[in-house]
Amino acid sequence: MIKIGIYGASGYTGQELLRLLLRHPEAEIVAVTSRRYAGRPVSAVYPAFTDLTGLVFMDASPAEVADECEQVFLALPHAVSMSVAPAFLRKPGLKVIDLSADFRLRDPEVYAAWYGRHTAAAYLPEAVYGLPELYRETIRPARLIANPGCYPTSVILGLAPLLKAGWIDPASIIADSKSGVSGAGREPLVSSLYCEVAEAFKAYKVAQHRHTPEMEQELGILAGRDLRISFTPHLLPITRGILSTLYATLTSPRTVKDVHELYANFYGRERFVRVYRPGDYPNVSAVRGTNYCDLGVAVDERTGRVLVISAIDNLVKGAAGQAVQNMNILWGWREDLGLEMISLYP
Amino acid sequence: MIKIGIYGASGYTGQELLRLLLRHPEAEIVAVTSRRYAGRPVSAVYPAFTDLTGLVFMDASPAEVADECEQVFLALPHAVSMSVAPAFLRKPGLKVIDLSADFRLRDPEVYAAWYGRHTAAAYLPEAVYGLPELYRETIRPARLIANPGCYPTSVILGLAPLLKAGWIDPASIIADSKSGVSGAGREPLVSSLYCEVAEAFKAYKVAQHRHTPEMEQELGILAGRDLRISFTPHLLPITRGILSTLYATLTSPRTVKDVHELYANFYGRERFVRVYRPGDYPNVSAVRGTNYCDLGVAVDERTGRVLVISAIDNLVKGAAGQAVQNMNILWGWREDLGLEMISLYP
Amino acid sequence: MIKIGIYGASGYTGQELLRLLLRHPEAEIVAVTSRRYAGRPVSAVYPAFTDLTGLVFMDASPAEVADECEQVFLALPHAVSMSVAPAFLRKPGLKVIDLSADFRLRDPEVYAAWYGRHTAAAYLPEAVYGLPELYRETIRPARLIANPGCYPTSVILGLAPLLKAGWIDPASIIADSKSGVSGAGREPLVSSLYCEVAEAFKAYKVAQHRHTPEMEQELGILAGRDLRISFTPHLLPITRGILSTLYATLTSPRTVKDVHELYANFYGRERFVRVYRPGDYPNVSAVRGTNYCDLGVAVDERTGRVLVISAIDNLVKGAAGQAVQNMNILWGWREDLGLEMISLYP
Amino acid sequence: MIKIGIYGASGYTGQELLRLLLRHPEAEIVAVTSRRYAGRPVSAVYPAFTDLTGLVFMDASPAEVADECEQVFLALPHAVSMSVAPAFLRKPGLKVIDLSADFRLRDPEVYAAWYGRHTAAAYLPEAVYGLPELYRETIRPARLIANPGCYPTSVILGLAPLLKAGWIDPASIIADSKSGVSGAGREPLVSSLYCEVAEAFKAYKVAQHRHTPEMEQELGILAGRDLRISFTPHLLPITRGILSTLYATLTSPRTVKDVHELYANFYGRERFVRVYRPGDYPNVSAVRGTNYCDLGVAVDERTGRVLVISAIDNLVKGAAGQAVQNMNILWGWREDLGLEMISLYP
Repeated sequence: MIKIGIYGASGYTGQELLRLLLRHPEAEIVAVTSRRYAGRPVSAVYPAFTDLTGLVFMDASPAEVADECEQVFLALPHAVSMSVAPAFLRKPGLKVIDLSADFRLRDPEVYAAWYGRHTAAAYLPEAVYGLPELYRETIRPARLIANPGCYPTSVILGLAPLLKAGWIDPASIIADSKSGVSGAGREPLVSSLYCEVAEAFKAYKVAQHRHTPEMEQELGILAGRDLRISFTPHLLPITRGILSTLYATLTSPRTVKDVHELYANFYGRERFVRVYRPGDYPNVSAVRGTNYCDLGVAVDERTGRVLVISAIDNLVKGAAGQAVQNMNILWGWREDLGLEMISLYP
Repeated sequence: MIKIGIYGASGYTGQELLRLLLRHPEAEIVAVTSRRYAGRPVSAVYPAFTDLTGLVFMDASPAEVADECEQVFLALPHAVSMSVAPAFLRKPGLKVIDLSADFRLRDPEVYAAWYGRHTAAAYLPEAVYGLPELYRETIRPARLIANPGCYPTSVILGLAPLLKAGWIDPASIIADSKSGVSGAGREPLVSSLYCEVAEAFKAYKVAQHRHTPEMEQELGILAGRDLRISFTPHLLPITRGILSTLYATLTSPRTVKDVHELYANFYGRERFVRVYRPGDYPNVSAVRGTNYCDLGVAVDERTGRVLVISAIDNLVKGAAGQAVQNMNILWGWREDLGLEMISLYP
Repeated sequence: MIKIGIYGASGYTGQELLRLLLRHPEAEIVAVTSRRYAGRPVSAVYPAFTDLTGLVFMDASPAEVADECEQVFLALPHAVSMSVAPAFLRKPGLKVIDLSADFRLRDPEVYAAWYGRHTAAAYLPEAVYGLPELYRETIRPARLIANPGCYPTSVILGLAPLLKAGWIDPASIIADSKSGVSGAGREPLVSSLYCEVAEAFKAYKVAQHRHTPEMEQELGILAGRDLRISFTPHLLPITRGILSTLYATLTSPRTVKDVHELYANFYGRERFVRVYRPGDYPNVSAVRGTNYCDLGVAVDERTGRVLVISAIDNLVKGAAGQAVQNMNILWGWREDLGLEMISLYP
Repeated sequence: MIKIGIYGASGYTGQELLRLLLRHPEAEIVAVTSRRYAGRPVSAVYPAFTDLTGLVFMDASPAEVADECEQVFLALPHAVSMSVAPAFLRKPGLKVIDLSADFRLRDPEVYAAWYGRHTAAAYLPEAVYGLPELYRETIRPARLIANPGCYPTSVILGLAPLLKAGWIDPASIIADSKSGVSGAGREPLVSSLYCEVAEAFKAYKVAQHRHTPEMEQELGILAGRDLRISFTPHLLPITRGILSTLYATLTSPRTVKDVHELYANFYGRERFVRVYRPGDYPNVSAVRGTNYCDLGVAVDERTGRVLVISAIDNLVKGAAGQAVQNMNILWGWREDLGLEMISLYP
């Protein structure tokens, strides 16, 4: 059992971490912070936790929380995260998993262009991009994990095998992504109201979403060269789930059987990636509440394009679940410890 | 580990049993039957199970399944269930949990009035109504459990303390219940289509739903006399969940504090009943995917009525979860084994 | 054509008035106010109006708006409404339809008990409760209409025939009501977020909702004596619609045929009340976007209770549509002018 | 007033025609057929029509219906439509608007490849593709209109200006489309059940949907050459609405201002196409229940691609509304007669 703190625990990502860690056999949550709900029991804010935990939200400084923990999760907005991370990293041995965007981009200039000036750039060199399927070995000894964004997780896992194999033209990538509303967090915004979202559907931040540089960084590494993609996020009238429909032009003819085989081999030993048989495509309902990334592939021989469809739960594999997976790697536990959920379907 | 069969495993209740039993530490599922999907892997029909089980739906006789199992769940429509149950009960030592209505009513005449002629009435005397909070000790040695209906579970648990204490007029009970669509099963009916259910809401089977006699039987036992209730089911545009709003007239003045105390005492040791503090009321989202029955109480001093609001997940505490709870009792395991889920919220 | 102002036009009720009045053959909207969106075109805030109106939200005083109009609608929160109404009423000939609660309760003491001190009580005697099916003749010559609340509309229309006929015990009334989220308006509240509402269902303000005294006032008038009801509102995961399930004890035996006949006679000439045949019950989807109140009746002979189920669209018959119906009466037009919508189903 | 028949009136498209035509000032519906519901009043099958029509579904031969009508709508499945159309066309002067796919493809070989053998190919030469924005003048004198498919309407209107202007590479087109469930009709299919669709999202018929050749035919005409597109349909958890996100590579650099101007000019006089300003994008909720096609454009200068986002209500502009628009043209009425609905929002 290790002692765990969740800094910024009252949003949807924070409470999802709670949901997972309360059932994790090696985790003991010792501190959950929230300025807004300081002093209130977790179960008063989130009745789902009634009888399940006596934890009370506290308003504590990073140093105070660091003192009590061996592992901390930062579930904070970007910019806030990099303002507190150093205080945690000062404590020797404490491992930090940051769920914000602050340590994902290796180049602080790129960060500045999309988010604003980086105030903790000194820590970027030691931050590891926490996508276990690509960086497992680098994650293991790290002490600062930049947990990937939800859209990037779905897009990068969806395209990695094709890019790594050099089967597609890197300039041809289009990622048409659709996300559930929980990705916008629990902030009370008009655009997140039930009446605005239900029976509605729209694209947003067209050609300017901040997850674009994160995807381009990682896809570029896989391709071995810089690249630019077209990324269009859409808002789905569902709570959880991202489905990305990915298009690229094949550099030479391949059948769907070829592509399926490539993916089956690439992800054959992965616990949390499921490659569907040709003709089957993922549905976000099959990954709801789980840490899976489900993938389906197709080849459109009429146009020479390959399609990959990728589904995750944005709060799990796209946030809290992946963070726990990273924690399991950091501490040398089985990678699926505490992550053996079966999708809540229907 | 005991060997388990699910007879009629392809409906929503059947797949929910699968979801729970695949993660149950003492359960080994050896047979899942489905006439419709015979020969098809479970994961082909329900992609959520991809990589999680190699089970294949089979079309097998009760005797064949009985041969392989120590515990069987019948997840069949009423009438079908009583036609196969005897074949299972013939095998000594085999325990049967029936999720249909066939063995819930003690009086075959009442069954006949609401469902049709009973063809296995000889087994009624040994059937035990599987509501653990009321019948735990009788369940333990039984070999035929009649798993309660979803609406009755929410209504009976909601009213038991008041009736047992004699605090309400048994003739005054009104149960206004609202259920998610999964209660109608996976049959392709026009009335269960997305376009008919979404952004819609209606009452149905007003004053004539078949769960009425089951409630009246059990509430009558608690009251120590025959009674009639008004029960109105409604169809909610959600997948999972039943919320029952229960009204009754107090026989003498009580405060909400009195009523809360009565409930807190009655259910104090129950693992799966959570009594909310006065002023708080349950939401089906807080029990989604769990085996909880959440209860909130109020007293309307202006009218002399007491209100109880009761929330369950109809597929879990209202069906598969309660069945697993019964199994745990039958085999002497901890009552929450395999049932430690936290609600999938949001 | 008359000149119309909507004071407080940017909420859901305000925009619904716009939707109806832009298609009303006698209406010319000359002013729409909104402090929040002052200076922005209506179509920029509500893209549904693109190409349909050049109106721009303005921040104007009541006197300025009064100057330009012959008819004004106040779509404001309670308390705010009574602070501006007098300024409008000072202009001779101007007719005011107030959609808030401020002029609905005849007794300012009752208002004070549920809402706070009344600051324009001098106008209460001339305010007319704008439920046309009951007060048509009083509405016609009035200049201040208190447009009914959404819940009260559904409950009062549902019970009027029974109370008027003296067929039920006035002390036995229970109103179990379920409302869509648009009733909470467009305020960005956590409790109105998609992730909180979808796949959820709960009761709220149990035994203490502010619409209770409004119902009791009107039901009492119908009954010819004071009465108290039990009223429980619930939040439905839908945008539009209220369904009220109403229970009462019959004072002497009646069949469903009797009750149906009573209702058919009572509402026989009403354009906006539809009485369903015995055995059929309303669904909010059949009134969506319309000014109908649909009613279904049942008698539970086992318990001696009568049930009435009532469905409206809370934004139309429960607010803006009823306001337009009142306007039509005030100006002597056909009562359904501009209100001939057919439900948007599916 | 002209006499109208709807052949196959009991599906969602048929009832939507009813909804529109009952309020159309020049339409008198004289016959509505349905084999399934023959003899039942329309309002018994669709309670939304209670008190609004006395029409009764009938089971009549094409000849019988033709006898009574001057205008007929065929709202039938493909293949069935072409089996009855000739019987209607035999009556001189009768105008036929077919909402199936049977007369949309000019080449019967293409029809055969995607649907099966064409049995009324003799009528193909006189069929006119009923997309008024492109074919208004040809529609006017026609007597057989092939009403476009829902996906094709959204995609063709979305790309017409760019293709006509020659600004994009015709080989680069990707149409990522998302449709509400009503597009699947009212057939009771497991895949259309609420529990399967709600909180779910998936692609289907990837690279093989039957609307592909219809789009390629029309886009090819606009481009002046044959072309192939990548088309991926997805199933949205909403009832009404299609949003298509369209990608293409610009043949030379253009700004979003250029593209917006091109669209504004192309559709400047169109009653039912609304072009949004740069930076604004359509939402299906803004066209719900209306005959609009809303368009938003963007240029991704980083990748040299243009994006068009197109939103329609699949039952209105994608089916019944467009059919009424075609009828208005055929009979020389104002094109928006009976089609002046404002979106039901929220």
